[in-house]
Amino acid sequence: MVKNGTLVNFASDNAAPVAPEILAAIQKANAGPMLSYGDDPLTSGVEAKLKQIFECDLRAFPVATGTAANVLGLSVMTPPYGAIYCHRLAHIEQDECGAPEFYTHGAKLVKLDGEGGKLQAAELDDVLKEAGAGNVHHVQPAVIDITQATESGTVYKPEEIAEIGIVAQRHGLGLHMDGARFANALTFLDCAPADITWRAGVDVLSFGATKNGAMGTEAVIFFNLEKAREFEFRRKRGAHLFSKMRYLSAQLDAYLTDGLWLDLAGHANRMAREVADRISAIPGAEVLYPVEANLIFARLPEASLESLAVSDVLYYRNGKDSAGEVRLVTSWNTSAQDVDHLLKVIT
Amino acid sequence: MVKNGTLVNFASDNAAPVAPEILAAIQKANAGPMLSYGDDPLTSGVEAKLKQIFECDLRAFPVATGTAANVLGLSVMTPPYGAIYCHRLAHIEQDECGAPEFYTHGAKLVKLDGEGGKLQAAELDDVLKEAGAGNVHHVQPAVIDITQATESGTVYKPEEIAEIGIVAQRHGLGLHMDGARFANALTFLDCAPADITWRAGVDVLSFGATKNGAMGTEAVIFFNLEKAREFEFRRKRGAHLFSKMRYLSAQLDAYLTDGLWLDLAGHANRMAREVADRISAIPGAEVLYPVEANLIFARLPEASLESLAVSDVLYYRNGKDSAGEVRLVTSWNTSAQDVDHLLKVIT
Amino acid sequence: MVKNGTLVNFASDNAAPVAPEILAAIQKANAGPMLSYGDDPLTSGVEAKLKQIFECDLRAFPVATGTAANVLGLSVMTPPYGAIYCHRLAHIEQDECGAPEFYTHGAKLVKLDGEGGKLQAAELDDVLKEAGAGNVHHVQPAVIDITQATESGTVYKPEEIAEIGIVAQRHGLGLHMDGARFANALTFLDCAPADITWRAGVDVLSFGATKNGAMGTEAVIFFNLEKAREFEFRRKRGAHLFSKMRYLSAQLDAYLTDGLWLDLAGHANRMAREVADRISAIPGAEVLYPVEANLIFARLPEASLESLAVSDVLYYRNGKDSAGEVRLVTSWNTSAQDVDHLLKVIT
Amino acid sequence: MVKNGTLVNFASDNAAPVAPEILAAIQKANAGPMLSYGDDPLTSGVEAKLKQIFECDLRAFPVATGTAANVLGLSVMTPPYGAIYCHRLAHIEQDECGAPEFYTHGAKLVKLDGEGGKLQAAELDDVLKEAGAGNVHHVQPAVIDITQATESGTVYKPEEIAEIGIVAQRHGLGLHMDGARFANALTFLDCAPADITWRAGVDVLSFGATKNGAMGTEAVIFFNLEKAREFEFRRKRGAHLFSKMRYLSAQLDAYLTDGLWLDLAGHANRMAREVADRISAIPGAEVLYPVEANLIFARLPEASLESLAVSDVLYYRNGKDSAGEVRLVTSWNTSAQDVDHLLKVIT
Repeated sequence: MVKNGTLVNFASDNAAPVAPEILAAIQKANAGPMLSYGDDPLTSGVEAKLKQIFECDLRAFPVATGTAANVLGLSVMTPPYGAIYCHRLAHIEQDECGAPEFYTHGAKLVKLDGEGGKLQAAELDDVLKEAGAGNVHHVQPAVIDITQATESGTVYKPEEIAEIGIVAQRHGLGLHMDGARFANALTFLDCAPADITWRAGVDVLSFGATKNGAMGTEAVIFFNLEKAREFEFRRKRGAHLFSKMRYLSAQLDAYLTDGLWLDLAGHANRMAREVADRISAIPGAEVLYPVEANLIFARLPEASLESLAVSDVLYYRNGKDSAGEVRLVTSWNTSAQDVDHLLKVIT
Repeated sequence: MVKNGTLVNFASDNAAPVAPEILAAIQKANAGPMLSYGDDPLTSGVEAKLKQIFECDLRAFPVATGTAANVLGLSVMTPPYGAIYCHRLAHIEQDECGAPEFYTHGAKLVKLDGEGGKLQAAELDDVLKEAGAGNVHHVQPAVIDITQATESGTVYKPEEIAEIGIVAQRHGLGLHMDGARFANALTFLDCAPADITWRAGVDVLSFGATKNGAMGTEAVIFFNLEKAREFEFRRKRGAHLFSKMRYLSAQLDAYLTDGLWLDLAGHANRMAREVADRISAIPGAEVLYPVEANLIFARLPEASLESLAVSDVLYYRNGKDSAGEVRLVTSWNTSAQDVDHLLKVIT
Repeated sequence: MVKNGTLVNFASDNAAPVAPEILAAIQKANAGPMLSYGDDPLTSGVEAKLKQIFECDLRAFPVATGTAANVLGLSVMTPPYGAIYCHRLAHIEQDECGAPEFYTHGAKLVKLDGEGGKLQAAELDDVLKEAGAGNVHHVQPAVIDITQATESGTVYKPEEIAEIGIVAQRHGLGLHMDGARFANALTFLDCAPADITWRAGVDVLSFGATKNGAMGTEAVIFFNLEKAREFEFRRKRGAHLFSKMRYLSAQLDAYLTDGLWLDLAGHANRMAREVADRISAIPGAEVLYPVEANLIFARLPEASLESLAVSDVLYYRNGKDSAGEVRLVTSWNTSAQDVDHLLKVIT
Repeated sequence: MVKNGTLVNFASDNAAPVAPEILAAIQKANAGPMLSYGDDPLTSGVEAKLKQIFECDLRAFPVATGTAANVLGLSVMTPPYGAIYCHRLAHIEQDECGAPEFYTHGAKLVKLDGEGGKLQAAELDDVLKEAGAGNVHHVQPAVIDITQATESGTVYKPEEIAEIGIVAQRHGLGLHMDGARFANALTFLDCAPADITWRAGVDVLSFGATKNGAMGTEAVIFFNLEKAREFEFRRKRGAHLFSKMRYLSAQLDAYLTDGLWLDLAGHANRMAREVADRISAIPGAEVLYPVEANLIFARLPEASLESLAVSDVLYYRNGKDSAGEVRLVTSWNTSAQDVDHLLKVIT
């Protein structure tokens, strides 16, 4: 992050405020006493809504951070001597300060490469064949983790996930999806939520909401009900069981009502595509990956970078070897004026 | 908990809603973008306010649950082969599903007894003399943990804490305070916050707010600045660093403004004392501990218990050997009518 | 331990040397290359011998220390949020510097009392009824751990173990036996090994040899074959898989051949009973527990203690409140002269 | 490993027996009682000898396996949110089933590449500049781990280590050396032990003996005395404190007496060089790395491989992409006949 107190946010969907419908739901939940720790009607209601949306039986548990959703989900999918296969850019590998290792008691994250932030089923298959399953000297393959939408702003197609699902099943691994930007991916694909999750072999999903207009709530969704059994103990001892759970569930409830989640993500995606299109038109500028969700990675001309650096726009420079590369993120409340402003700065 | 969907809450301060001033602060914080992960002015403002209130330099870190506050604080105070001395009723021992062991990587909680939920300095001193410090076969004494107000609803006096602080220092241990109901204790004592914390030898404080009218926010306060250094890494890898931190900090900010925290706790305490006084007047009923905060433990006549069991009052039966014993909790929004209703039921 | 460089050992069976038969077996194993990490005929032979001795199918894994045997065995019997019920004097609770918590990733040891170092089935049953099974706020009952022979030198009878086994089964817990002095117990009981293990409900046994004449080898025996599956991974990542495994297995092989293990233990037990009998005859002296294995706890007159303190006898004073109490341990190589010498010193 | 029950060992130095001098020392140590857990003169004597050999003050702790030496050493060098930089072929990364993650409570191993199994100081420096030190989202750089001799059979020169030591110091990391084949490296270099350890910046050394003729003993050596302080607690709770420690120390004592360790390693190295020289002379065969210790990696013609596969020689095929590649290991007791036999098979 390059500056503070400024006004135009293309730095992170986490820097956006809470959608008004969600804030209203929190307020509405604030009437009188309600049983604590999730024994409330709002919490069971969220699970019921998710069953409808995903068209299947499932267990869903609210937690407050995306990292908590990821690492608690993973913690029931691997033994401590297990290996988790993920993209080298995965949030769990890059940005969680060792939380996966902490929650799994020392499982090893095995980094793989892959165009546009995506794992490839064929490469996974090759790697797993040589991974030493059953050999006591080696960590044991346990989980494949994919991110939807990816950290590069691309989106796995249903058939890409299904291929990975088949590899997971062939080698006896679980399939975990980090869906911090699940709504952005789904909006882009315009398919059923089931098509990119359980129908494609996903066992556990981090169903994100915080980056897409909530205040701080995600759902860990188990399509594999067996694996859900010990989740609640692990959530509590991770200190992620909220006493006043109703306020997390109220957010999710509003998020899932009347398609709000898809509307918010749809807006963010549209803004991203507009940014991408207009950057592509700048001489010397280049958009680096297909912009399928709400992230734009772009290489900008030096003059644009200089202008950006002294502007009131929040954004990220991306990595050390990425001279001239920036990451821009849109959100549910990125406005057309914000986009105009950004483009004025860099054009 | 004995029933659901009922109306009059004496079961838990966690079942109470959020105080209106705090909800208003959340709403006010919801304007435009703000840097994420705590790089916002609200978060730094909370630390500044706490320095004034505690009259000293300190570091303060918001987290969302009381268990998180406790176990993250403890995690920097003990090696994994350490021992944490606590009351047998302590929340960290009884009610956190092994979270302290998880976050400390296996430190051992050593349970002590003590009247009214309080540890005694003299007994601690005796135990520590025989604790095997330096002996490689034994876990190593590292932390004393006290709860203020205690799980029995009593309050440590400043001099009681100071005596424990001296024992901690004599044996080279840190002193941790679980202050989930710190405001209730302070209101009762009517002393300076410093008198029951750093001036008495407390190194790290879980400064509670959730049970006293917040939605989900606590501050881990380090009076020992050295120990604060690695806290942020442990919070992140515990998945307790909130991206939209502003909403946690906004709660704390409102809580600390114009003495709201003490007003809320003062009300809860007054209601508790009224409940206690009126129960004491019931023939055959007995209040078990001095009611100094917002918890009442009482032995009730059989008729009262039966009447309570079929009523619309939420409350807890307490333990197996405690035939006839109930726990009643008041909160910032317990009303005079609630108290009248309860007493009508049990009289 | 009160002195060094002295000659007559009643301090510990760990201070005894290695039995000549076992040393000879090590020497014999030292011929030419042999596959490492347990892929050798000596190691498989040990398992075969144990199947005969215990009259059942089983899996057996050599490790080098008693603590390793205990904590690796426990590590596959409890989730990290589990509770292990043990006697307050248990080695795993008192003398392993938190190794059980380390290997189980934070399970909680729940200490119980019990005459002569023995857990009582009825008390266990009571405690487990109130242990909060299924309640997410509490650690979950997972294992009962008993020590045979106990730390007090007494021995569980087959029916005492069977009663505990029934309680374990009723509540869905595993039953673990720390058999660091298993041979001493068996010799005393003169029953079949099966009678105090799998027939009585024991799932996993630390089968000790080091204290009874080996150099450094124990077997972790799984009567519950299902639980054995992940043991080898946990042993390796605990750094307890020996490359030159043949030398551990050679010890066990000799130990189990021609009843050596029972002969060695029988001698130690006889010496202990002689010590006990002769101490009982000293005016003012008192033997504290039934001497059923090779440990004697005795209260001695002041003159005896003073004489002992300046003698060349190695022994332990026992605990702080135990004025005048000593622990004396015999071993496979305690001689009649050693006993005479000890008695001369204290009489 | 490709066969069992065969006679000629080029598979592993772990498959070799114990050197007679070391077995004799074990026998000699077997006289009478000796205090347990390392409170014996043999153990303190080993530390004294190592001080002389390394020409400095140090702390040395015997453990029984190479993995234990590595992971216990690392466990005091990194916080649980730390990063350990190692070669992608490092034993700690490849062959310890997650033991480093277990003992460090979840530190992350960051794999680097490097010719001949060696890390390069310049690359380390580059990587550490971009490693996110101080950034709460990332694991924190803590340790550089190098292997001497390397897993590829090469040996770091003193100046190569010193350059890495400077990088470690510049970035505030500790430097750990896995010296499972330390003697082989030292023999090759013919320098002072200090030149490739503390004088070059090494803080902690796994000083191997098992692969070089011992039965099962290594020393963890701390040149950084500060870091040694908590080692003993971690060793005990790792279940690696031996009760009958004298037998580990006796091995080390003999190993260090009259240069036995260097004689044994010198022999192994000479045999390796002879194997390498003679393989190089086979048409179509190729030795892959400089043979500086006792490991030979070679690409063999198809006919040689076929002949080897059906022979009585123990050896390893190496990796999946390494068609035709074998690993051959010599040891202290590889004989000239063994070498002749091997060469006859593959020529």
